[in-house]
Amino acid sequence: MEKLDGYSGDIKRLLEENNVRAGDVIRVVTLDREYVGTLIPRYEYASQDFLTLKLLNGYNIGIKFDRILSIALVEKHSPPSFKPTPPKFRSENLPHAVIVSTGGTIASRVDYRTGGVRPALTASDLLSVVPELAEIAKVDAEVLFSIYSENMTQSHWTTLSKKLHDYISRGYEGVVVTHGTDTMGYTAAALSFALKNTPIPIILVGSQRSSDRPSSDASSNLISAMHTSIKAPFSGVYVLMHGWVSDERMAIHLGTKVRKLHTSRRDAFKSVNTKPAAFYENGEIHVLLDNLPKRRPPSSFEIFPNFDERVALIKFYPNMSPEIFTYLHERGYRGFIIEGFGLGHVNSTLTPVLKKLVKDGVFIFMTSQCIFGRVRLTVYDTGRDLLEAGVIPLEDMLPETAFVKLSWCLGNFEEAKVLDIMKANIANEYSPRTVLDEGEWFGS
Amino acid sequence: MEKLDGYSGDIKRLLEENNVRAGDVIRVVTLDREYVGTLIPRYEYASQDFLTLKLLNGYNIGIKFDRILSIALVEKHSPPSFKPTPPKFRSENLPHAVIVSTGGTIASRVDYRTGGVRPALTASDLLSVVPELAEIAKVDAEVLFSIYSENMTQSHWTTLSKKLHDYISRGYEGVVVTHGTDTMGYTAAALSFALKNTPIPIILVGSQRSSDRPSSDASSNLISAMHTSIKAPFSGVYVLMHGWVSDERMAIHLGTKVRKLHTSRRDAFKSVNTKPAAFYENGEIHVLLDNLPKRRPPSSFEIFPNFDERVALIKFYPNMSPEIFTYLHERGYRGFIIEGFGLGHVNSTLTPVLKKLVKDGVFIFMTSQCIFGRVRLTVYDTGRDLLEAGVIPLEDMLPETAFVKLSWCLGNFEEAKVLDIMKANIANEYSPRTVLDEGEWFGS
Repeated sequence: MEKLDGYSGDIKRLLEENNVRAGDVIRVVTLDREYVGTLIPRYEYASQDFLTLKLLNGYNIGIKFDRILSIALVEKHSPPSFKPTPPKFRSENLPHAVIVSTGGTIASRVDYRTGGVRPALTASDLLSVVPELAEIAKVDAEVLFSIYSENMTQSHWTTLSKKLHDYISRGYEGVVVTHGTDTMGYTAAALSFALKNTPIPIILVGSQRSSDRPSSDASSNLISAMHTSIKAPFSGVYVLMHGWVSDERMAIHLGTKVRKLHTSRRDAFKSVNTKPAAFYENGEIHVLLDNLPKRRPPSSFEIFPNFDERVALIKFYPNMSPEIFTYLHERGYRGFIIEGFGLGHVNSTLTPVLKKLVKDGVFIFMTSQCIFGRVRLTVYDTGRDLLEAGVIPLEDMLPETAFVKLSWCLGNFEEAKVLDIMKANIANEYSPRTVLDEGEWFGS
Repeated sequence: MEKLDGYSGDIKRLLEENNVRAGDVIRVVTLDREYVGTLIPRYEYASQDFLTLKLLNGYNIGIKFDRILSIALVEKHSPPSFKPTPPKFRSENLPHAVIVSTGGTIASRVDYRTGGVRPALTASDLLSVVPELAEIAKVDAEVLFSIYSENMTQSHWTTLSKKLHDYISRGYEGVVVTHGTDTMGYTAAALSFALKNTPIPIILVGSQRSSDRPSSDASSNLISAMHTSIKAPFSGVYVLMHGWVSDERMAIHLGTKVRKLHTSRRDAFKSVNTKPAAFYENGEIHVLLDNLPKRRPPSSFEIFPNFDERVALIKFYPNMSPEIFTYLHERGYRGFIIEGFGLGHVNSTLTPVLKKLVKDGVFIFMTSQCIFGRVRLTVYDTGRDLLEAGVIPLEDMLPETAFVKLSWCLGNFEEAKVLDIMKANIANEYSPRTVLDEGEWFGS
C-alpha cells in the first residue's frame, strides 16, 4: 500500500487533495475545535486512523480522522536555517572559550519534514541559536563529531579527551562540550578518568528539547555551562543540566556520579549517592560538596586517553544463564562489570563460573542494579562466596561509571595495577562512607 | 596462614588468649573508649588490621588493632532460637489467613557465628517473631521455599502461583508472601500476570534488616501486609514495604510497577512512573490510584502459571557488540527485552541485527535504562529505524516487568498472540499517558 509520509487510505487522500505534506503548517477543523500546527510523518507502528500535529507549544497531538471536518494549508515547509543574530556587546577583554560539539539535540534545529535533526556546524550557527554566549566570552566552536550519542564509542572518548587536553593546554579559559543526553553520563565518566588534574572545570551539557521548541532547555543550559566553566572555583569534569523542574536552577553534577534517570524530563539527570557538586542560579555558582578538586596550575595537567573495548556491563536477572560470561570470555573480553541484585548478589549457579574466569585472569567487579546505595558482599553467604571467588565489590560506584573505569584501566595501565586503580578513588567515583544511610534521598 | 573465623596474626592471638570466637559478645577497651558487641567473622577482602564488632544498635564497626588495649568475653555464642510468645488474644471470629514463606530476611534470625540466616520454619516460629499476627487473623504458615531470593527462577514463580491459587480457592481471606527483597519486584510482576482476577489482594512483603536488629522493619512490614490483604478494597498483587523513612507509613506498590531502588534503606522500594497504589498508616488503608481492580468473586479467578526461560533482559552500553544477541538466538532464546538509552535507543550497528532476528521470529521489545519515563521511538531517525526493524517499544513499562511479562507470554500463549498480549495492559504494567511529564517525580 503506497503511503504519503507514512499516511495511507482516507487520510492520505485528504492530504493529497489539499497539497499538504509532512513538515507543512496546517489548520485542522474538527467537530468541536480548530488546531494549527506542523504535520508530522506517521510510522508503521502507529494507528492509521490518526493524523499527528505538532502544535505551536511544541507538543504533539493525534487527531482522529473521523472527527476532522477540513484541513487547510497555512505554510509550506522550508528546511530549518540558522540566522545569526549580531551580539549586542562583545568586548576584547572577555575570556577565550571553546564549545566542542559532539552532536545531539542541544545545538540543532529539527527538520519536521524528515523528522531529522540538523546540527549546528559552525561557531556562527551556535551563536545564532544562543546569541547571549557572545556577551560571556570570545567563543570558538568546533564540531568534532556530529553523531547521535548512542553511537559514541571508546575511540570517540579518546579523540574527545585529546581535543580537550589540547584546547586547555593552549590556554582556553572555558571549555564546554555539547553532547546528546543518551550517553552523556558515560562520556562524562570517561573524561573524568582520562583527564587528570584539569586546570579548569570542563562542562558537558545537553538538552532534552530541541532548541526551536518553546520549552527548550538548550540555551539556558548552554549559557549556564559556559558561565560555570569560566567562573567555578573547582576543576574536574561535570554535567550541567536542569536540576529541578524550575528554569532558574541548573544542577552541576560530578561526571562520575551522574545518571540519566528519566527519558524525557528536562531535569532527567540526577547525582546518585551524592548531592550535585554545585548548582548555578542567577549567575552565581553555589558549591554543595566539599571534596571537589580546586582549580590547578596547567603544569600538572595529564592525559590518559585510552579505553579498552573488551569490557562488558552485564545486568543480572533471575535465572540468568552463566553461559553469556563464558562466551564473552572466549571472545576475548578482559573484564566484566556485573549489575547484581540488592547488595550485589547473583544466583549461586554463576559463582563457580566467575571463580574460574577470575582464575583465568578476567577482572570481575560487582555493582548493584538498585542504582542507589552501596554494595556489600559480607552480609550474606552468597556475597561471601563471591568475594571468595575473587569478585570485587565497587562500593557505591555507578555501574555505568564502573564500566567506563574498567575500560579505561585496561586501556592505560598494566594488568598488575588494575585492581589497585579500580579500588582507588580517582575522580570522586566513590562517595565517602556514612554510618547511617538514612536521611535525604529520593526527594532531596 | 591459619585463621580463626577469618582473623589472623596478632588479632587471632588476642582472640585465642581470651577464648573468644565469632558470635560471642565481647567488651573491647580502646585508647579512648569502650565497646560491647558481637564479634563478626572477617573475610578475605577485608583488611587484617581491624576487628569487626556488631554493636547492640545493630550497626557494625571496625576497630583498629593497634588501638585495642584489652578484650574480654561477656557472653558465649548460642545458636539463635525462636521463642514462641503466647498471643494476648485470639478470637475464633478472626479471618483465616496464610503466610507463604519463600525465604529471605524477613522471617529469619541471624546466626552471628556462621553469619548465616536461620529461616523461620513453622507458623509458631513466625508468631514468635511477630506475635501481634495472632490478634489479626488465624494464621497458617507454609514454608514453600527457603532460598535467597537471588536464586528464584521461573519454576519457583510457577510453584508459588499455583500454591497461592490453591489457598485463595480454598477460601483464605488473607494471603501474605514473605520474600527476599533482591528479586521481590520480579516475583511480584510474575504473580501479577500469572494470577488473573484475584478475589483478594495478595501482598508480598520483605525486610531490609533482619528481625533481631533493633532497626528491623520485619514486624511492622508483616503486620501491615496482613492487615492490607484482609482489609484493602482492591484486588491484585502488591508489594508492601516502608515507603518513606518513617516507621508509621507503609507504601503499597503495584506488583508490576515496583522496583528496589536502594541497596540498604528500609524505603528501598519505589513505584516507578506512578504513585504507590495506596499507603497503610495507623491501621488505615489510603488508596492513591483510581484504576485498581476491585475485590472480585472467586468464580472469575484464573491462573496462567507458566514462564518460558528462553528470554533475556539485556542492558545496552556504549559500543556494545551485537554478537550477544546472535549468540543467544543460536542458543534457542525466543525473546529479548532491551534496556536502551534514553527514549529507547541503541547504536546503529545493532539495528540490522535486530531486524534479522525479528525476521527469524525472535520477539524484541524496547525499554529504557533511564528507568523513569516513557520510551518513544518516533522522535529520532534511529528510533524509527528500530520500529521499522520490528522492535516494539513498551511505553513506560519497567524493564524487569517487561522481562517477566515476555517470559509469561511465551510460557502460556501461542506465538501469534504474543504481540497483542505484550501491548495490552494486563495488570497495570502500563500507566495512563499524560500529556506533560512534568510535575512531581523525584521527591514525590
